[in-house]
Amino acid sequence: MPLSRRPELRGILETALYVEDLERSRAFYAALFGLPVLVGDDRFCAFDVAGRDVLLLFRKGGTPAPVPTPGGMIPPHDGNGRLHLAFAVDREDLEGWETLLRERGIGIESRVEWRAGGRSVYFRDPDGHLLELATPGVWGNY
Amino acid sequence: MPLSRRPELRGILETALYVEDLERSRAFYAALFGLPVLVGDDRFCAFDVAGRDVLLLFRKGGTPAPVPTPGGMIPPHDGNGRLHLAFAVDREDLEGWETLLRERGIGIESRVEWRAGGRSVYFRDPDGHLLELATPGVWGNY
Repeated sequence: MPLSRRPELRGILETALYVEDLERSRAFYAALFGLPVLVGDDRFCAFDVAGRDVLLLFRKGGTPAPVPTPGGMIPPHDGNGRLHLAFAVDREDLEGWETLLRERGIGIESRVEWRAGGRSVYFRDPDGHLLELATPGVWGNY
Repeated sequence: MPLSRRPELRGILETALYVEDLERSRAFYAALFGLPVLVGDDRFCAFDVAGRDVLLLFRKGGTPAPVPTPGGMIPPHDGNGRLHLAFAVDREDLEGWETLLRERGIGIESRVEWRAGGRSVYFRDPDGHLLELATPGVWGNY
């Protein structure tokens, strides 16, 4: 029997980090990036990113069991370590981002110039998660 | 001294998972979602997601030290646990996705109907990472 036609993904909607101190991380992401909070409690916090993505911060060990909601159950998950994510930024804003990081005392751990013309700036969040600001041209066309 | 104007993020460009068996996970994501590989080696694999996002799979423990590149150094990172991410899908494709999961023997762990009208389907990847297919209306406007 032939396999069904595969629908297409439209993108990655939610990206999650797991943090030791949810309030500290919430303050860090809100203050540095100006991200609006969509929803949150003492277990997690959901930020809107540019009206197209959701950044989820979960308290480490805070979701060990299914979470009931009115519309169904959210399965358990959890993470550890120094994870990585990259935010897309405009090329002309990279200097402004570097200034902002400097003003806030956040050290830049590395800068990379990619063959496709893009640039990346790397730094850490309060848990040591590796954050990247990436201009167009890090990955070919986007 | 006033703080600098904050530039705006354009979205989350890269989302990373950490996996035990890179080849197994690469095959899982390529076969299930039909994601094209942008670049990869025995340390990591980068998938294009809908021409707008990058899904990165890293071999657990494979990036403990800075990685030199021609254009600069990529700082170390690593992760563990059963992480979470959500893919955006079209509402009319959700049934097709469920059929595809069933045909491939991938169990659906939960379904949620959200107050804003969206629906989510949850299942696991080979490492137990919690994957979600989310239609519009999980988070308000997107």
